[in-house]
Amino acid sequence: MAERFYCGVDFGGTNIKAGVVRASDRALLGLVSIPTRRECGPNHVIGQIIESARRAVERSGLRREQVAGVGIGSPGPLSHRRGEVYQTSNLPGWRCEPVAALVSEATGRPATLENDGNAAAWGEFWAGAGRDVQSLVFLTLGTGIGGGIILEGRLVRGGRENGAELGHMIVCASGRPCSCGQRGCLETYASAHKTAQRFVEALDAGEPSMLSERHRAGLEITSKEIAQAVADGDPLAARIWDQTCHYLAVACVSIARVVNPDRVLLAGGMIAAGEELLLRPVRAKFAELNWKLHCEHLVLEPEIGFASLGNNAGVIGAAGAVELAIQEGTIRDGGV
Amino acid sequence: MAERFYCGVDFGGTNIKAGVVRASDRALLGLVSIPTRRECGPNHVIGQIIESARRAVERSGLRREQVAGVGIGSPGPLSHRRGEVYQTSNLPGWRCEPVAALVSEATGRPATLENDGNAAAWGEFWAGAGRDVQSLVFLTLGTGIGGGIILEGRLVRGGRENGAELGHMIVCASGRPCSCGQRGCLETYASAHKTAQRFVEALDAGEPSMLSERHRAGLEITSKEIAQAVADGDPLAARIWDQTCHYLAVACVSIARVVNPDRVLLAGGMIAAGEELLLRPVRAKFAELNWKLHCEHLVLEPEIGFASLGNNAGVIGAAGAVELAIQEGTIRDGGV
Repeated sequence: MAERFYCGVDFGGTNIKAGVVRASDRALLGLVSIPTRRECGPNHVIGQIIESARRAVERSGLRREQVAGVGIGSPGPLSHRRGEVYQTSNLPGWRCEPVAALVSEATGRPATLENDGNAAAWGEFWAGAGRDVQSLVFLTLGTGIGGGIILEGRLVRGGRENGAELGHMIVCASGRPCSCGQRGCLETYASAHKTAQRFVEALDAGEPSMLSERHRAGLEITSKEIAQAVADGDPLAARIWDQTCHYLAVACVSIARVVNPDRVLLAGGMIAAGEELLLRPVRAKFAELNWKLHCEHLVLEPEIGFASLGNNAGVIGAAGAVELAIQEGTIRDGGV
Repeated sequence: MAERFYCGVDFGGTNIKAGVVRASDRALLGLVSIPTRRECGPNHVIGQIIESARRAVERSGLRREQVAGVGIGSPGPLSHRRGEVYQTSNLPGWRCEPVAALVSEATGRPATLENDGNAAAWGEFWAGAGRDVQSLVFLTLGTGIGGGIILEGRLVRGGRENGAELGHMIVCASGRPCSCGQRGCLETYASAHKTAQRFVEALDAGEPSMLSERHRAGLEITSKEIAQAVADGDPLAARIWDQTCHYLAVACVSIARVVNPDRVLLAGGMIAAGEELLLRPVRAKFAELNWKLHCEHLVLEPEIGFASLGNNAGVIGAAGAVELAIQEGTIRDGGV
């Protein structure tokens, strides 16, 4: 039997990345990245998605016919069933764009669409740090917080196809306002961006820190500098970082109660802080905040760990979504 | 083809209820209720479960062979896959009891075990206020808060089989202590019992209310009296009740983000308060707290409504769980 290949496209606000994944060992081939140029509107962007897929297949040394299909991970709201991406605050000019149909038409391959967080979660499940479990929750800590849920080996898209928006779980009722219009979203405390924002707010309020001078000089302070300052013993950085870990642990407890996964995987820029600075405190706070019901015959709690695919989880997961869609019967198998 | 029948048992701390459901119209037949007498230990209680099933079949005028199987809804933690109920704070002496196997052996019918909240949710989906949707979340507001989740027509038991413990989602980090060992669980604010407890605490702190005299007389105050006092214009009752509705709405927002169901169904003793007093404020607060992302092509938000099966949801759902287990292939079809 011929080797199988799936093309994956990870479409974000800044760049569109594409690659081809070989089914047998889930190796990523022919990775390309091109600018999204979202300001040019949906037709341009969808053209770039198609172009990225074409280049990835070319760079992989494959013929188009060898690729079973194209998977696209996209910001939501979207409909996987209909293959449409709807208007979002991130994408000017988008209304109701039939992305899957347009990509399929242009490439001559079946195409499937998934939320970007779901695609990345599927990538970790299919080819990364979740390969050995049947259920996981994925949290990517970047500018915002994206999420994905897999249960009993199935991708959980939510009843109305827009679930797993885990960055917008409310972890602190009446808490900090979020750009989504809610208050106290996990994202407002624990994303890389909002961790840095909370830190800068504290500096602006006059709290002392070894990063004060950097801030006064107008240099940017990111979660990376804050993590370093925590390691260097800065008390303000420690307090802000502690709050980030606290709310991540609160979210993990609610996730354990609702979804009860085998594993929670943290991903995104923040995990560069490492196990000692991020994973250890989140695990310790989880143990402290979590219920005290113990069951000697059943493990009730998730492991908490790091994702392993880094920035490629989205591309790999979008490619894996082709295999998933073939299994679920929503697209035909376009492979030869 | 002969009519099909399923036996359902709803096993709670005080009573064990059993009935038979006719598959064609999901009518409940032969309902019986017998005391659990949990203080007598697991062997006695499992004997009562078997006895309740026997009586329900007899009262339905059926022969045992006409019943396709027995479904048991039980407090957790438990394993649906293994058919075992584990030690719980509610059930003295229980360790690891093979309830499904013992019931099957004694009745000569296949048996399946589900968490009681999951069973009741399945009942509403199968035969109640969720018959017309493909996904729902069920919240039963009683002494505690139980939950259940159905997505794409499938019961979501959670990765480690003990999900949908929605009463223990954290809605207020560092909030009120819960008997489970967590803080700020939904249950600590919004169950019938805890709503009454918060009200009584306020009375004890000297806050005035039209129920003060009743309290001083040593009479019990339940959520029913509080709801009546809200209707009668009592400001303290209104404040406590408002907080209950607030946290229910907070939970509904997080549920919408994670699970994204078509519908959230409220059930349990509290819903006797009625649409005006409970549903209207929860819906209004949900709209206020919920994100402001609108998508004209897709409904992103759940409807919030009342369950319709009352106290029988658990028995009906346990019976429906037999059909579910046959469909899922976990038990053979014992019907004739």
